[in-house]
Amino acid sequence: MKHETIYGVHAVRSMLTRHPQRVVAVRLTESRHDPRAREIEDLAKKSGRTVERIDARALKQTLGDVAHQGVVAEIEPLPPWTEDDLLAALETARDPLLLVLDGVQDPHNLGACLRTADACGALAVVVPKDRAAQLNATARKVAVGAAETTPVVAVTNLARALKLLKEAGLWIVGADADGPKLAHEADLRGGVALVLGAEGSGLRQLTKQTCDFVVRLPSLGAVESLNVSVAAGMLLYEAVRQRGSPPATPI
Amino acid sequence: MKHETIYGVHAVRSMLTRHPQRVVAVRLTESRHDPRAREIEDLAKKSGRTVERIDARALKQTLGDVAHQGVVAEIEPLPPWTEDDLLAALETARDPLLLVLDGVQDPHNLGACLRTADACGALAVVVPKDRAAQLNATARKVAVGAAETTPVVAVTNLARALKLLKEAGLWIVGADADGPKLAHEADLRGGVALVLGAEGSGLRQLTKQTCDFVVRLPSLGAVESLNVSVAAGMLLYEAVRQRGSPPATPI
Repeated sequence: MKHETIYGVHAVRSMLTRHPQRVVAVRLTESRHDPRAREIEDLAKKSGRTVERIDARALKQTLGDVAHQGVVAEIEPLPPWTEDDLLAALETARDPLLLVLDGVQDPHNLGACLRTADACGALAVVVPKDRAAQLNATARKVAVGAAETTPVVAVTNLARALKLLKEAGLWIVGADADGPKLAHEADLRGGVALVLGAEGSGLRQLTKQTCDFVVRLPSLGAVESLNVSVAAGMLLYEAVRQRGSPPATPI
Repeated sequence: MKHETIYGVHAVRSMLTRHPQRVVAVRLTESRHDPRAREIEDLAKKSGRTVERIDARALKQTLGDVAHQGVVAEIEPLPPWTEDDLLAALETARDPLLLVLDGVQDPHNLGACLRTADACGALAVVVPKDRAAQLNATARKVAVGAAETTPVVAVTNLARALKLLKEAGLWIVGADADGPKLAHEADLRGGVALVLGAEGSGLRQLTKQTCDFVVRLPSLGAVESLNVSVAAGMLLYEAVRQRGSPPATPI
């Protein structure tokens, strides 16, 4: 399998801490000898990975004009998850948070949602296999590394997948302009799947019927709707807020 | 001044309710005779505006493939606000909410922030005049009509503008990964200006020093940061949540 390149102190440290077995190589520019770089070196050594020193100009040539902070890693890409992988992961996950996108068409929006889902500690992002944006190169780029840590699960039948999630003990919470409750009036703690509709059209009727409850987000202005990645951000934020300040993440 | 076209039931109704004097013409497709269309007609009549009936195909040719819902209006564009206009508006605004973008470069991000600011009832969006995205055609398009209701105020010196906002009684709240408090631990009620930094680099040092306090947003994953429009969405959402369910907006 082709390796993926991730960069930035936060991304590389996170990968070395959470998935060291997937790290193939760590590279630091020659000038980095600060405590954060030393921490990366220590983590790499602990996992038996050597750290190469490289030239900053060579790095810029390879990566282009990105905020790499002089820290890059080559990693084994995240293998795609099947529906079964997701259900298996749910068996051991504590208070899992999922983001479900019901027919989002634009790979930029999928990538933006994935980036936010990762930042909010979501276990995975679920999308339908048909008539919806998939994890292509554009989505990966917009996700700035989140595609390597937060799996995207493409399912054949979304309504059926939501029922399986329900049977696995999750609450299915949809977001819709007509939702009877505001997001913060709903209980988003415990195992929850947050479901957002496509740009423009919103949740499909069948999806809405499958939801345990439907909430709405701020709509105080003139615009018809929120961008789907912003709506996902608000809803994920609200879930994280309700779950309380988590202990400092080990990254 | 060239007229702007807005479309969609929500946008046209909002403009007729809040700024009827700016509406030049209202057009409905021939097939729309439902209660929501009648409400638009009534609002237009109340302001002395006639409603034209138009052909759906002609509308599609003019607007392209957008969700116009058979409802469009020609309006006088929102005149740009100066810093003085903003300070004057603050004198009468109740619990004003402002979004301040410290050097956001991408007009897509400015447009997305403007759309979200509008949905969250922000009074205006403040940006620096130099080295920052301005309200160009791209930003307007991404804002899907919000540029016609939520003014963008371009200021010469952002730190000075923030000081004037402080003197006007607003709390200046920055968002930064190093913020000592989580967003929901800060009081975002009353008059507040929420300040977000540029993509990648975050708040400038001088801006950070001018803030009354700095809060952080969820960062539980591998990605280095949130997209600026998603971060703006989370912070605006939190402010709206704290302000409590507002009375149903008159739109």
